[in-house]
Amino acid sequence: MTAAPRNSARIIVTGGTFDKRYDAIKGELTFSETHLPALLEQARVTLRLALDIRLLIDSLQMTDAHRQEVLLACRESPESAIVVVHGTDTMAETAQVVGRAALDKAVVFTGAMVPYSVQGSDAPFNLGFALAASLTLPAGAYVAMNARIFPWDDVMKDRKEGMFKRK
Amino acid sequence: MTAAPRNSARIIVTGGTFDKRYDAIKGELTFSETHLPALLEQARVTLRLALDIRLLIDSLQMTDAHRQEVLLACRESPESAIVVVHGTDTMAETAQVVGRAALDKAVVFTGAMVPYSVQGSDAPFNLGFALAASLTLPAGAYVAMNARIFPWDDVMKDRKEGMFKRK
Amino acid sequence: MTAAPRNSARIIVTGGTFDKRYDAIKGELTFSETHLPALLEQARVTLRLALDIRLLIDSLQMTDAHRQEVLLACRESPESAIVVVHGTDTMAETAQVVGRAALDKAVVFTGAMVPYSVQGSDAPFNLGFALAASLTLPAGAYVAMNARIFPWDDVMKDRKEGMFKRK
Amino acid sequence: MTAAPRNSARIIVTGGTFDKRYDAIKGELTFSETHLPALLEQARVTLRLALDIRLLIDSLQMTDAHRQEVLLACRESPESAIVVVHGTDTMAETAQVVGRAALDKAVVFTGAMVPYSVQGSDAPFNLGFALAASLTLPAGAYVAMNARIFPWDDVMKDRKEGMFKRK
Repeated sequence: MTAAPRNSARIIVTGGTFDKRYDAIKGELTFSETHLPALLEQARVTLRLALDIRLLIDSLQMTDAHRQEVLLACRESPESAIVVVHGTDTMAETAQVVGRAALDKAVVFTGAMVPYSVQGSDAPFNLGFALAASLTLPAGAYVAMNARIFPWDDVMKDRKEGMFKRK
Repeated sequence: MTAAPRNSARIIVTGGTFDKRYDAIKGELTFSETHLPALLEQARVTLRLALDIRLLIDSLQMTDAHRQEVLLACRESPESAIVVVHGTDTMAETAQVVGRAALDKAVVFTGAMVPYSVQGSDAPFNLGFALAASLTLPAGAYVAMNARIFPWDDVMKDRKEGMFKRK
Repeated sequence: MTAAPRNSARIIVTGGTFDKRYDAIKGELTFSETHLPALLEQARVTLRLALDIRLLIDSLQMTDAHRQEVLLACRESPESAIVVVHGTDTMAETAQVVGRAALDKAVVFTGAMVPYSVQGSDAPFNLGFALAASLTLPAGAYVAMNARIFPWDDVMKDRKEGMFKRK
Repeated sequence: MTAAPRNSARIIVTGGTFDKRYDAIKGELTFSETHLPALLEQARVTLRLALDIRLLIDSLQMTDAHRQEVLLACRESPESAIVVVHGTDTMAETAQVVGRAALDKAVVFTGAMVPYSVQGSDAPFNLGFALAASLTLPAGAYVAMNARIFPWDDVMKDRKEGMFKRK
């Protein structure tokens, strides 16, 4: 590859474990607002970056309509490097919807197994990993988890191990 | 680019702010041991990864001999995706030494402006970012900081702003 | 009071939000093991301290039999300064059981509204607060939350506000 | 003691390791502003509490004039429960100045061996511990560190071990 890395990117937020927060009154993890702005400040990002907060839901709640909305957000993105922050449980499914559309953009799905707000979260590492992948990979849809890059048509979550792997 | 991302990587540790720890007795930040194993566990990494702890020094202490040692470590690496964790102050200088050697590997330098052991560190994000870059970029030497990828011959640290930029 | 503070203490662990951990596979907060040893090391404690791990349950699951077990643990404690780490929902109820027994010991109940393992937890502050209270208060049973000390017979949790107050 | 715990307190901030922050540009720990408001919010404090930010210095920089200022702040405090957040190196010395004044208040000195902003800090625990001590101890001056309460005239810092002990 001789092409230079893309020099701007878009992050599309859909929710997932990545963005869950502890609600001290309810005593459980819920959604209130995304941690992305805090995380990007912490990462001292100077890349030109658009933040597109679409959904804030558990990926088990994600419907076909939601997936079409994610696809539309990718399709309409002026940036050709896209990271989709997504719950892990149905991440591969949404990646398939975007992958089949064969957009001329690199769309990289990532998420977290441990919320950003919990000690020992994989969220900051995963976001950094996915963002670099979106800047450098050829057009296509990918899942980036566990420091690995999977093509959209050959990835599944091993729920028992909590890891992603090829099918 | 039609080539698939590389499927294994090497992390060469040299120290830098990334790995500083607070010494409660001395009351200052010093080096004792690298945080890389903890960070990789937290990131739930399943990529095949070699960890090569070469140095644990401040990059202002880095000599030409040290830089040759980093170059040698890159040259001898069986993996062609390499991340070098390095202090930010002279990161660009070491990247030049490796860049001029024109190895047939992607060598990506990264570090942190805030130590991993301090709240709000950029270390996990940066490591994830650099690792994905090393898996996907064409052979060459790069600096990956602030969510940007710089070629080795066009990068400098703006010490006043604490950010990397093109020359 | 002219008596010196007590110079040793016992911490009786029963579980509660204080000790919940995020289970990445299940995607929820559960109990696996207590954080007390880690917390005490972090606090650099040199006080003579016995750690008595009795239960690791949600306080909504706590039965009369569990409460009798806590009372027995207090009664048999060789230390007369006792902290009971307890879920907040029924903390006042267990404090009543111990308070009515009128032991010749200072028994201080505390817990957390946010788990120790979650960012922004009140657990370390609360444990320190309760421990000092147990060393200095006259014999009796107390609830120590929100930086306040409540007698066992005049305290309730305001579940809506997530705060403790007098009845 | 039959008297109830005091029901309000004052925290006098003087700086020390407790309040040091990492300056990413300078690459060292410095003072910018106190973490006390953040810490008290995290601790979900409902106690009536006055926060009196006097100094933000390293305790090795503390002069006799500074100590007189701390004493004056204690003397003029309307609250009779006082916590002084202080650097550990000369904490015992300032405690002596306040102790000799024999105020009719409980003044409890505390600090931290690891800054609040660094992972594994003892700051939240120590603040909670000192605050409860200030509410419950008889009038006098004390050092509260390592989960122990020392009278002002029988305490020293063991600098080699990083612990406080009786003389």
